[in-house]
Amino acid sequence: MARYTAHCQIRWSDMDAFGHVNNARYLTLFEEARTELIARIAAERGLERLMSGVVIARHEIDYLRPIDYQPAPVRIDTWVLEVRNVSFKVGYEMFDHDGGQIVARAQTQMVPYDLAASRPRRLDPVEKAFLEAWLLTAPEPDPVHR
Amino acid sequence: MARYTAHCQIRWSDMDAFGHVNNARYLTLFEEARTELIARIAAERGLERLMSGVVIARHEIDYLRPIDYQPAPVRIDTWVLEVRNVSFKVGYEMFDHDGGQIVARAQTQMVPYDLAASRPRRLDPVEKAFLEAWLLTAPEPDPVHR
Amino acid sequence: MARYTAHCQIRWSDMDAFGHVNNARYLTLFEEARTELIARIAAERGLERLMSGVVIARHEIDYLRPIDYQPAPVRIDTWVLEVRNVSFKVGYEMFDHDGGQIVARAQTQMVPYDLAASRPRRLDPVEKAFLEAWLLTAPEPDPVHR
Amino acid sequence: MARYTAHCQIRWSDMDAFGHVNNARYLTLFEEARTELIARIAAERGLERLMSGVVIARHEIDYLRPIDYQPAPVRIDTWVLEVRNVSFKVGYEMFDHDGGQIVARAQTQMVPYDLAASRPRRLDPVEKAFLEAWLLTAPEPDPVHR
Repeated sequence: MARYTAHCQIRWSDMDAFGHVNNARYLTLFEEARTELIARIAAERGLERLMSGVVIARHEIDYLRPIDYQPAPVRIDTWVLEVRNVSFKVGYEMFDHDGGQIVARAQTQMVPYDLAASRPRRLDPVEKAFLEAWLLTAPEPDPVHR
Repeated sequence: MARYTAHCQIRWSDMDAFGHVNNARYLTLFEEARTELIARIAAERGLERLMSGVVIARHEIDYLRPIDYQPAPVRIDTWVLEVRNVSFKVGYEMFDHDGGQIVARAQTQMVPYDLAASRPRRLDPVEKAFLEAWLLTAPEPDPVHR
Repeated sequence: MARYTAHCQIRWSDMDAFGHVNNARYLTLFEEARTELIARIAAERGLERLMSGVVIARHEIDYLRPIDYQPAPVRIDTWVLEVRNVSFKVGYEMFDHDGGQIVARAQTQMVPYDLAASRPRRLDPVEKAFLEAWLLTAPEPDPVHR
Repeated sequence: MARYTAHCQIRWSDMDAFGHVNNARYLTLFEEARTELIARIAAERGLERLMSGVVIARHEIDYLRPIDYQPAPVRIDTWVLEVRNVSFKVGYEMFDHDGGQIVARAQTQMVPYDLAASRPRRLDPVEKAFLEAWLLTAPEPDPVHR
C-alpha cells in the first residue's frame, strides 16, 4: 500500500533561538500530515470520528538532522503501522524537501474515544477497514540516511 | 538523589480546538523544566555547554490524561535516567498541579554537540559528574495510572 | 482605580531565531494577563460571558525594547481604557520584570458577541459596571521611555 | 505598483479553544508574508539587512471575520505604506482564500537596526529604492467591512 505524502511549509517562527526548527514543532508538523490523511479519509468516507473521536496515547520521535528555515516545504510520508480493536499506530518520515534527506522519524499511538461518554471505545469495522488500507510494515532504515 | 521539581504555568493559547492542552505543547512544557534544570546547573557550575552544546536525539512521551486550562501551574519532576560518554537521557513526570494526578510521562535522549566543529562530542568529566548527581532509576509505573 | 498586575513566565520557546521573544508572542502574553483579569472578574461575579462571549476587534502594540530569555517573569499591568454599549478597550504595559523597564505598550478593542445567534450583542449593565471599576485614563507616556 | 501576494497554510494547531485561528497567530501569518517579500527582495538584490537588520516598532491589526480551519491556504497581500530615512511601514490584507472574503487588515512599522552597534541606523539608498518599488497608497477601507 502506498504512503500518504503531505507537504508542509516551515514558518520563520518555527525556528528557536538556535536557528533551527524547534523540537516540539516537529509534532505540529506531523500533526498536520496526520490530520490531512484523516481529514482526507473522513471527507471521502464519512469517518469524522477518526479526527474528533480519537486521543493521542503516545509519541516516539527520532531527530536525525536539524531543519533550517527554507522556502521549500518539508515532505512528510505517513502510513498506518498497526490496527487493533482499541488503538492504532501511525508512522511518519519527514524529509527536508521533496527528494531531500530524511530529517526525522516518528510514530503515534492513538486511542478511539467516546467523547460523550468520556471513555475509550472500539474502532468500528468501517474505521478498521480504512486504516488497514494504509497499513504498511515499518520501512527498513536506509543505511545511507542513518 | 532527589528529582528536580519545576512549576509551569499553562497558557490559554496552549489549548487546541478540543479544549485541552495540545499534544505538541507538552514537549514545550518539558523543555521548560529541562531548561530550568540545565540552566540551574549551568548557573551554579559554569556548565553553559549543557544548554547550548547539546542536541535532542529522541523523545518518548505517554499521555495519561488530558490537561484543562487552569489557574494553578502544572508540576514537572525531572531527573537523569542514564549518562554515557556520548549521550544522556532525561526522564520527566507531569502532574496537573502540585499534589495532583500524573498526566504524562516522557524521556529525552540528548547528544553533546560541538557547534563550532558541527559534530557530536563527548561529555567532559565535570558535565558527567553533575548529570550523575541527578541520576535516578526510572520509577515503577503506577499500575493504577497505566 | 488600580491596575491589575499579572506576572507571566517567558518560555525558552518564546524566543525566535534572533534570540529575543518573538513579536507575535507578546499578544499571547497580553492575552494571559487579560484572561487572568477577566477570569478573576468572572470567578468573583459570575460574568463568564466576558471571556467566552467576546471577540477581539483590534490590537495596537508598540515594541519599546527587546525581551531576552530570563528566569524572572515579565510583569503586565492591565486596565480598562473605554467602556461603550457595544465594545470596550483594554490597555496594557509590559515590564521586563517587577520594578524593571517598560518593554511594550498595547491596547485591545473587544466586542461582546452572542455566540448562539452569531452576532454582536450589547454589554449588560452588570458587565459594564465591573469593567468601569477597572477604568483608568491612559497613563502619560514616560518621556524617558518613548 | 503591484501588491505582493503570498499563500499561507493554516495549521490545525493555529486554532484555539474557540475553534478559530487564535488572534496572536495572525501576526505569525503576516510575518510569513512579510518575510517572503523581504526574503524575495533580498534573494534578488542582495539586501539581506532588510530581514536581519530590522526590528519591529509597532503593529496595528483589525480583525474583520474569524478564520476556521480549512484545507485551502489564506491569501495575504503585502505592500509598502511609507518609506522614511529611519523607518518604513508595511500594509497587509488577509483573505480567507484566493478570491475569498477579507478577514483582517494590518500594518507594521519597522526600524532599521545596526545589530553590531546595537542602535537604530538609516535605510541605505539601495534599500529605500527597493522598498519604494512596493510603495502603494493604503486602499480605501471597504465601508461594508469596517
